Amino acid sequence: MENITPEQFEELRKLSESALFAANNTWLLNATVLVFMMHLGFAMLEAGFVQPKNIINILFKNTMVICIGLLSYYFIGFGLMYPGDASAGGFFGFAGFGANLPDGYDPLTYAEGKYTYWTEFIFQAMFAATAATIVSGAVAERIKLSAFLGFTIFLVTFSYPITGFWHWGGGWLAKLGFHDLAGCAMIHIVGGTAALVMAVLLGPRVGRYGADGSINVIPENNLPFVAVGVFLLWFGWFGFNGGSVLSADPELVSKVFAVTGLGSAAGAIGALIAAYARFKTYDLTMTLNGILGGLVGITAGADLLSPAQAVFIGFVAGLMVPYVVHMFDLIRVDDPVGATTVHLVGGLWGALAVGIFTEVSFLVQLVGCICVFAFTLVFSFLIGYILQATLGLRVSAEKEKQGL
Amino acid sequence: MENITPEQFEELRKLSESALFAANNTWLLNATVLVFMMHLGFAMLEAGFVQPKNIINILFKNTMVICIGLLSYYFIGFGLMYPGDASAGGFFGFAGFGANLPDGYDPLTYAEGKYTYWTEFIFQAMFAATAATIVSGAVAERIKLSAFLGFTIFLVTFSYPITGFWHWGGGWLAKLGFHDLAGCAMIHIVGGTAALVMAVLLGPRVGRYGADGSINVIPENNLPFVAVGVFLLWFGWFGFNGGSVLSADPELVSKVFAVTGLGSAAGAIGALIAAYARFKTYDLTMTLNGILGGLVGITAGADLLSPAQAVFIGFVAGLMVPYVVHMFDLIRVDDPVGATTVHLVGGLWGALAVGIFTEVSFLVQLVGCICVFAFTLVFSFLIGYILQATLGLRVSAEKEKQGL
Amino acid sequence: MENITPEQFEELRKLSESALFAANNTWLLNATVLVFMMHLGFAMLEAGFVQPKNIINILFKNTMVICIGLLSYYFIGFGLMYPGDASAGGFFGFAGFGANLPDGYDPLTYAEGKYTYWTEFIFQAMFAATAATIVSGAVAERIKLSAFLGFTIFLVTFSYPITGFWHWGGGWLAKLGFHDLAGCAMIHIVGGTAALVMAVLLGPRVGRYGADGSINVIPENNLPFVAVGVFLLWFGWFGFNGGSVLSADPELVSKVFAVTGLGSAAGAIGALIAAYARFKTYDLTMTLNGILGGLVGITAGADLLSPAQAVFIGFVAGLMVPYVVHMFDLIRVDDPVGATTVHLVGGLWGALAVGIFTEVSFLVQLVGCICVFAFTLVFSFLIGYILQATLGLRVSAEKEKQGL
Repeated sequence: MENITPEQFEELRKLSESALFAANNTWLLNATVLVFMMHLGFAMLEAGFVQPKNIINILFKNTMVICIGLLSYYFIGFGLMYPGDASAGGFFGFAGFGANLPDGYDPLTYAEGKYTYWTEFIFQAMFAATAATIVSGAVAERIKLSAFLGFTIFLVTFSYPITGFWHWGGGWLAKLGFHDLAGCAMIHIVGGTAALVMAVLLGPRVGRYGADGSINVIPENNLPFVAVGVFLLWFGWFGFNGGSVLSADPELVSKVFAVTGLGSAAGAIGALIAAYARFKTYDLTMTLNGILGGLVGITAGADLLSPAQAVFIGFVAGLMVPYVVHMFDLIRVDDPVGATTVHLVGGLWGALAVGIFTEVSFLVQLVGCICVFAFTLVFSFLIGYILQATLGLRVSAEKEKQGL
Repeated sequence: MENITPEQFEELRKLSESALFAANNTWLLNATVLVFMMHLGFAMLEAGFVQPKNIINILFKNTMVICIGLLSYYFIGFGLMYPGDASAGGFFGFAGFGANLPDGYDPLTYAEGKYTYWTEFIFQAMFAATAATIVSGAVAERIKLSAFLGFTIFLVTFSYPITGFWHWGGGWLAKLGFHDLAGCAMIHIVGGTAALVMAVLLGPRVGRYGADGSINVIPENNLPFVAVGVFLLWFGWFGFNGGSVLSADPELVSKVFAVTGLGSAAGAIGALIAAYARFKTYDLTMTLNGILGGLVGITAGADLLSPAQAVFIGFVAGLMVPYVVHMFDLIRVDDPVGATTVHLVGGLWGALAVGIFTEVSFLVQLVGCICVFAFTLVFSFLIGYILQATLGLRVSAEKEKQGL
Repeated sequence: MENITPEQFEELRKLSESALFAANNTWLLNATVLVFMMHLGFAMLEAGFVQPKNIINILFKNTMVICIGLLSYYFIGFGLMYPGDASAGGFFGFAGFGANLPDGYDPLTYAEGKYTYWTEFIFQAMFAATAATIVSGAVAERIKLSAFLGFTIFLVTFSYPITGFWHWGGGWLAKLGFHDLAGCAMIHIVGGTAALVMAVLLGPRVGRYGADGSINVIPENNLPFVAVGVFLLWFGWFGFNGGSVLSADPELVSKVFAVTGLGSAAGAIGALIAAYARFKTYDLTMTLNGILGGLVGITAGADLLSPAQAVFIGFVAGLMVPYVVHMFDLIRVDDPVGATTVHLVGGLWGALAVGIFTEVSFLVQLVGCICVFAFTLVFSFLIGYILQATLGLRVSAEKEKQGL
């Protein structure tokens, strides 16, 4: 019998590496499809919250957000978020227009056999659009379509990728040791802050707050749509968190799944209890927002947290929901779907929780949150003001009454 | 040229094993996400069947079932279903509270490179909640929310895991050679029996059966919702059956897919024909329930049956649907969505069909079905009586009329 | 230390091959589930377009199409499409009734470790049914249910597999070098042509076209349903295109994903602009059809096109939508959902675009499109006439007014 030659051995190594590469890469593509579904989730959620007269408008906005998001991320955003060597001190960089394969690109070695360039692009592009979708709910029922689309383009093309680069693109936050698995800060604080700014700039819907300080409830149009939206978001979130592991590592991905499932379930229980304490009734809307709160809450640390910690963090996130929603109403921020509560406050809690419950530095997490919040705040105000001064942000009172 | 050293060879073996492990494990996680979607499917199905006044109530119940299911399975159920060595004669065991990694846990060897501990947990947790969801449809429009949630907690935490242990956890049914791939008995007979018991304890909806023996049809509220629900359940069922192979074994999983697709399609044709024979009209509701009947029917043997057998078994399952629905009405069991028909009778047919069409012992299948039925029957009556005596099961006639 | 024996080496090679096989095969099964979801997408899309009185009818048709499609493809279609050696000159062949494993079948070597026989069957069966579903929208609101089901059976069982064999089964078009990744011609021209023929044979809905040449708009019943349908189709299309690679090849599949995402987004922008140019308003329906147009447009060449080309091709496909819809109205082809526009014209554009933008011969693409179109045209007219002469195609004017 002859010996095995090194060539035969190398050939077999290639085969094994290809198999692991295929398993890793398809996991991320499956996750991409799940994250795509979140866009339908957001669309249904928001369509369920708005009044019937505005439902077509909100569906149109959500459809355009994902289309604009994919294209602008392709043309500019991806190059801003992953500039490679073209980075100025870890704060800003640009790899050029269009998604261009790096020189000497080899699929198998590009990311150590975990994913290809195009997988990275399409997975990240689906993420990018979610940040803008968060805004869509908070500004519903009164924003001009052109102003919303303009704001979306700027947010997805410039703001989101720049802060995203700080952490995920290898910028200064990454070097500091900031930890944010699937984007408590990079997605939810970004989207939530932009939502808050635009809701403030727009002012509340007509009739939302009485002159006497009363809060008028504008009831959900369609609770089944809200429920469908939340279930689809939940479905997609397994890909959002599970794909963010950026490989198919069995132990890590499966723990992320368990943590995601348990954190969200605990969020529902938390919100149910808090809403019962406040209103003495079971509240489906609050419970559904509690699920989203729980999901946001465990998004930053789903890879580091234990299931027991996830239950606690999700529970607290859910518990906060009814109170934070009310708090925003007290300061007259009218957010028809509760996006600022779920995403901004939930994202903050989730990012800080990583600093509390794991070995990641709390201070670094805090600094990261503040800087992402501040950058997005300034950027959003700037773009918001410019749009207000040019296109105008808000539809006429008559059109608002009549429906968009 | 030098020879390959045993160390190099071992390293390559590890790489290959990791690749297969990743492929296996991600398959189960994908299946987990599909099974999750079944909960939205059940929610839509039931929301479509109930009267508009009860739609929010049913959505709330379905939302809580999955949340309670995940958490109670984490805290207790998983330890009851997979007690490991802590088993008393194969009938009962408990590994302890909370999902605890076994001593000396190694992800790759835990299940022979097929899945990790956390994959097993989250996949099984999604399953556990489906059993309780089946009940939700049968008791719709008249059960007290607190009584339903109480019953759900007991069913998912204790009853389902105990019978589940008998087969899937390696208990006495497993040792007898009982075969039930994805749970004709372990899920559908359990859920269907509990549904039957609660429907009997509750009694029919007001006005459902006339004093003169007539049956008053309470029409579906929203057939599009029912259709969406069935398609989502169908979608999820590919993961339910395909994931139950517990590995990505290409030949086995793909045959399970073909069998699942063909059995469900044949179920639709069977129900269509039977409903046409009875009512002389095409009946969408019956056809949709025929799909579910076909799916339940091939759930126990999807890995052993041939596609041709699947077509026959699914066809018979569908054919039965209109007759069994009518039979339950004759004995005054009011089940608004037909859950007892689809799940209890369909599950029984499916589990016995394995004993008829394959080499598995028919007697063992029969014994397994009877024991699972009997245990769940007794357990459900016990819990149902206790709840009736304490919280009360049924809302007031006025509240029932008014909507929940 | 001893040397590695050839037996040990072979064993390790088998392990590596199994791992790659599992990764490849599960990718296709995941794609199968995604393609399945397209059937719910079509159902919702069409349910949203028709008038409320016809919604149950359309849901019934879409439910039956997938059931009939799976079964007839199992009994006959698969054997016609993949006849193996039993082919007469590359135009026609039949491997026999029922899906039969070939002699000496070995899962691992059947398709070079890419997929099993049953994976091929179930993936292709899901595809087959989509062709018939396309017809369902175009003939909505006036076709007799029996005539539609009869037509579906003939189309899925005979017409689709025969032309499918020409290319995908290794027939004459394959030998000519025709390229059609996921079926611009084999699915969309087939479905679109059959839809056109049946819409012409049926004539327009009562009241659709005035005697004075006016076109009466019959508004969509439910735009949220249309939006949900398009998002679900979009979701499924990633599996439709990504699975058509027929392996999990990381670079190829990921590029197909990027191309699919970008082409569809560009389609939306194209349709938005064209609709704005025509109607001076943002039109959600046109935008949604633009997404579908973009998806159809990049379906033939998603594996060969660059992302930049995909943006262009999708954009043009979307741009055409409002004009082609209007053109069909001018020639009095009443297609309630725009299926002929999206699928026939979009499919033609997509198949030819491969001949324009890649090294594939334009002439071959043209010949392929013409032959598939001509065959389906003749077949559909033949079946349509026979059904008209026997069952009758159209419901009575009274029943049409009243709803199906």
